[in-house]
Amino acid sequence: MDQKASEKDPLVLFMPSGRRGRFEKGTNILEAARQLGVYVESVCGGRGICGRCQIEIQEGSFAKHGITSANEHVSAFGAKEKRYAEKRELKDGRRLSCSATIEGDLVVDVPQDVQVNAQIVRKAADTRLIERNPAIQMCYVEVDEPDMHKPLGDLDRLKLALERDWGFSDIIVDQHLLPRVQKILREGEWAVTAAIHQDMETARPALIALYPGLKNEAYGIACDIGSTTIAMHLSSLLSGLTIASAGVSNPQIRFGEDLMSRVSYVMMHPDGQEAMTNAVHNALNGLIEEVCAESGVDPTDILDAVFVGNPIMHHLFLGIDPTELGGAPFALAVSGAVHSWASDLNLALNHGTRVYMLPCIAGHVGADAAAATLCEGPHRQDEIMLLVDVGTNAEIVLGNRERVVAASSPTGPAFEGAEISCGQRAASGAIERVRIDPQTLEPRMRVIGVDAWSDEPGFAAQAEKTGVTGVCGSGIIEVIAEMFLAGIISEDGVIDGSLADRSGRIIKDGRTFSYVLWDGDTRLTITQNDVRAIQLAKAALYAGIKLLMDKQDIAHVDRIGLAGAFGSFIDPKYAMVLGLVPDCDLDKVKSVGNAAGTGARMALLNRGYRREIEETVTAIEKIETALEPKFQEHFVNAMALPNKVDAFPELARAVKLPAKAEPAAADAAAGGRRRREGRRRRT
Amino acid sequence: MDQKASEKDPLVLFMPSGRRGRFEKGTNILEAARQLGVYVESVCGGRGICGRCQIEIQEGSFAKHGITSANEHVSAFGAKEKRYAEKRELKDGRRLSCSATIEGDLVVDVPQDVQVNAQIVRKAADTRLIERNPAIQMCYVEVDEPDMHKPLGDLDRLKLALERDWGFSDIIVDQHLLPRVQKILREGEWAVTAAIHQDMETARPALIALYPGLKNEAYGIACDIGSTTIAMHLSSLLSGLTIASAGVSNPQIRFGEDLMSRVSYVMMHPDGQEAMTNAVHNALNGLIEEVCAESGVDPTDILDAVFVGNPIMHHLFLGIDPTELGGAPFALAVSGAVHSWASDLNLALNHGTRVYMLPCIAGHVGADAAAATLCEGPHRQDEIMLLVDVGTNAEIVLGNRERVVAASSPTGPAFEGAEISCGQRAASGAIERVRIDPQTLEPRMRVIGVDAWSDEPGFAAQAEKTGVTGVCGSGIIEVIAEMFLAGIISEDGVIDGSLADRSGRIIKDGRTFSYVLWDGDTRLTITQNDVRAIQLAKAALYAGIKLLMDKQDIAHVDRIGLAGAFGSFIDPKYAMVLGLVPDCDLDKVKSVGNAAGTGARMALLNRGYRREIEETVTAIEKIETALEPKFQEHFVNAMALPNKVDAFPELARAVKLPAKAEPAAADAAAGGRRRREGRRRRT
Repeated sequence: MDQKASEKDPLVLFMPSGRRGRFEKGTNILEAARQLGVYVESVCGGRGICGRCQIEIQEGSFAKHGITSANEHVSAFGAKEKRYAEKRELKDGRRLSCSATIEGDLVVDVPQDVQVNAQIVRKAADTRLIERNPAIQMCYVEVDEPDMHKPLGDLDRLKLALERDWGFSDIIVDQHLLPRVQKILREGEWAVTAAIHQDMETARPALIALYPGLKNEAYGIACDIGSTTIAMHLSSLLSGLTIASAGVSNPQIRFGEDLMSRVSYVMMHPDGQEAMTNAVHNALNGLIEEVCAESGVDPTDILDAVFVGNPIMHHLFLGIDPTELGGAPFALAVSGAVHSWASDLNLALNHGTRVYMLPCIAGHVGADAAAATLCEGPHRQDEIMLLVDVGTNAEIVLGNRERVVAASSPTGPAFEGAEISCGQRAASGAIERVRIDPQTLEPRMRVIGVDAWSDEPGFAAQAEKTGVTGVCGSGIIEVIAEMFLAGIISEDGVIDGSLADRSGRIIKDGRTFSYVLWDGDTRLTITQNDVRAIQLAKAALYAGIKLLMDKQDIAHVDRIGLAGAFGSFIDPKYAMVLGLVPDCDLDKVKSVGNAAGTGARMALLNRGYRREIEETVTAIEKIETALEPKFQEHFVNAMALPNKVDAFPELARAVKLPAKAEPAAADAAAGGRRRREGRRRRT
Repeated sequence: MDQKASEKDPLVLFMPSGRRGRFEKGTNILEAARQLGVYVESVCGGRGICGRCQIEIQEGSFAKHGITSANEHVSAFGAKEKRYAEKRELKDGRRLSCSATIEGDLVVDVPQDVQVNAQIVRKAADTRLIERNPAIQMCYVEVDEPDMHKPLGDLDRLKLALERDWGFSDIIVDQHLLPRVQKILREGEWAVTAAIHQDMETARPALIALYPGLKNEAYGIACDIGSTTIAMHLSSLLSGLTIASAGVSNPQIRFGEDLMSRVSYVMMHPDGQEAMTNAVHNALNGLIEEVCAESGVDPTDILDAVFVGNPIMHHLFLGIDPTELGGAPFALAVSGAVHSWASDLNLALNHGTRVYMLPCIAGHVGADAAAATLCEGPHRQDEIMLLVDVGTNAEIVLGNRERVVAASSPTGPAFEGAEISCGQRAASGAIERVRIDPQTLEPRMRVIGVDAWSDEPGFAAQAEKTGVTGVCGSGIIEVIAEMFLAGIISEDGVIDGSLADRSGRIIKDGRTFSYVLWDGDTRLTITQNDVRAIQLAKAALYAGIKLLMDKQDIAHVDRIGLAGAFGSFIDPKYAMVLGLVPDCDLDKVKSVGNAAGTGARMALLNRGYRREIEETVTAIEKIETALEPKFQEHFVNAMALPNKVDAFPELARAVKLPAKAEPAAADAAAGGRRRREGRRRRT
């Protein structure tokens, strides 16, 4: 707020931030926004040529704020603004805040969609508005021409101009620019746009790219390197819009399907790490080409890049041998945020492009979990939130603004269908949804690639094309949960052989029984071993969650987010019926599938989020489940469906759960112990 | 000084710094030195294993300081010190300051030659002791082992150890170390030595190299890239000693003998700059190999590098096209100090090695002149010093602690023998010293490669091997000065044809006369044109100096330093007889031939000197001689020998100068004007 302002001066309210202040008549609106800390973009520094500082005046009486705002409370179009509106498009009602001045009370809307390049369209998927404060700032300056009386170098005069017009002092200059600075200055006739990278406000600003004349765009990529899929978003750093997205299977799959097999590959092949690092770099360069082709963006205009991934993906991306993550004490080479150069990581971007990687939380809780935490923000809430990313190792984060704790739990690959007799990856022909009639014990199901449910007309014809080839992760959760709800399996996970009398779907299979889910060209059965595998996996997950709840001293969570690919597809209700997660109001259990990618985008568009997640990760208390004495007890209790000791009252309101019985505790405990030891050795 | 210290506490004086303070008995001597700001090296951080912190106790009564110092005033050998003395050599009288404590009054000598590697010997040439405060610090630390309860990464725990033991916070880590940090930590069994680069105390420290266990050495190179010769010194950053030096002809000579022909080459060949940049990088890598081979040092142990050179060498080294330096306004791409990476400049050193280049003063006054200024320190003196580096463009610096001014003057290549009929480069067979008998007008001379003077026994036999092939720069200065002193040429530079009657050495040569300097297999004559060429060159130089003296409002300089290769070989007396430089006490005129190289070494060994020269260069007032109205007048006056208007009373005390006559002013002025215009166009 203007220090000279008095109560008689106009009152200005900026939306959506809600910041307000009084300013003398004649104050420039951009200047007023800056004084209030409202982020309004500007590349040209108020020369009225970039058009980035557009705002909209809200007309009308805003009684709540005591403001009557009108277009007449702003100065008329000046020369700069007229020139801009003639040369470029300035939508009706839009003004350039660098030119318009305050002449009365105002409600000023700072639109979040200011785009000056017509070809760039917003992606439909991009629904979340992220407040911007990027690490890259595009700064147009007019540089003094060389003067024999003051023989300062061209670069030195450019630095002076950046200090004079933009307040940057003590600028670091990337070596690659030195040979180019003279040509660019002359090409731009002493007017250039400097790309300044400043991740931390306390760090020295770095000049990383330089363009002749006005360069009115700059881009960044945010990337989630998953063990299965790599996803990339291309965003404008000046408008915040996501303008292209692409994904690809992680090519490291050819070295090993899951994380641990990739670590084994590295341990057994001298060049294994290098080969996998190259593979991921190549895949990333392919995605860069793809998003650039889709949007017509030049890759050298991508000036910032943010990456997240689980610890093993994180290490392989950075060229670090992940062997240490394969065994206790699971030492990360680096856990803090990593600042690097795209060129050092072989990424085909601008020479000066910087790379930021979010911190890892622990040896099995990676930068992807940190990004999901940043996105979902348990640390910003009063409610206690549980965030779970289910994979071979589940990453678990639990807490609220008071305290956040995290752990990983060795669930193994069962949820991904790997230890299930009829399991398969989520692809065409896989059963993904299942319902079982508790009276007839007959199932109906949905198959990936087929629109109709199996009891609907047209299913058979469509399914002929895809085949019905197996059951994917979400299908396994549903079929076992439905078997439990239908009374086919007991609370302790035993398939009830006595039902064979009632239904041909229950068949004897050696000393145990199986359930025939599909009997077509292939026969898909859920065996007793399949049920056990899911029990073991979900018990490990739940035990990890319980340890964190113990640490927090809580018996109930307010909110649950299921992250990752698996989390996107499972039905929260069935996850809870099986007891993967603790009891919770079902309306507050949600898939947050792309939380890691969104967290990466947040860190790309706003450096403040980088500091936020760094501080949060430092403060997060890490629990090593393997070292907790109560893990075993929680594990044994969690073998039961949904749980031997924990009640699920919220779930019971939505689903009719079978009555409780005595669990086969000894059996479950023995199995649990064997399982855990086996898993830990392989991890 | 210990804050708790009282007047009763022991008084400790450190030499050679002369800093003193009182400390409580039992205070560690290293700690006392640090408190007083006395630089004492230590790699192991006081563990008594590196031996770098050696000091010597001076015994006796130091009345001036009121101290009686004795070995008994220091604690007896402790366990650490005994162990070190047993394992390694600890010279008689030496103590480890990290172990010995103060027990009484002491005079402590901090030796400047502490070396712990026997194979490293001091170069004889290295006579100047440079106070050390290098940008590289070697820091031994013991890092906590990984702990599953606190899953901080290995690198993160290393950073914590560096903060705990060495006070470095917020460390930047070079990307190339990330893949190696885990192996190095394990190889060193959690003890490692980190190389920390911190050029400015306010900058974030950077971890640039990491070694398992104790790494008790680190090296740096200082390099002067001359247009003719490239010289490199390899120094220990831990002892300050120069341990190897090497030089090589600048391979760019094949693209052009002098600077301007190299700029022309770039302008005419699209790949010219790249070819010359590669040539100098290759030459530097050859020198690196050479100094490393000579000293047995691994190139990857060279962690810091300082370069100086004239503006065109500076630009070509950095990969910058020097075309802009070829014409007005002679715009430097960058004038300030440059911080870069050796790997970006294709130097085969450690991945993390940093490069520092001193600032340039102006478009024709380069980083070499800045380094010479740093070395000779006019800005540190009360006396007014003139520093001249004679080349195709002379670089001139003049001033004292009050004010320093600088300029370049277009002397052309005459001093290098290029426009002289019998001129040649300083090589075997070149006449380098000349004396002329004023009675007989007979010369005697010395020839490079021949020990005897030409009138001494054995000359003929030796000269048969080398031949007498031409006259090099210093020889030309001497022969023309001697011709002037012998009355062969007049004050205005005309060879006196009337002397042909007295001596056969004076011969008619068209409308003018020549002097026969040598008449053997080849005949070497000094023609009237040769004399004119030297007059024009020296007049340009002197006029530049006079402009700076005008700016300083002085008529006399206290001290003159002649820098560069030319400056190393010319006799100051003859330079003054010809009037290249103004009158000065001859005892205070000295060759400072290697001042630029020494300045580079100073910046290598002490980052404080980097700040000193940066501040000095910023403060230096630059005069563009081409724009000064008085240049022409000074030039015309300086055509006379030694000068038409300026007196040389100091010189006259040492040398009998011919009586003054009327100069041929009109002729000289016309020549000067033509010359200047011609030169500037080519520059």
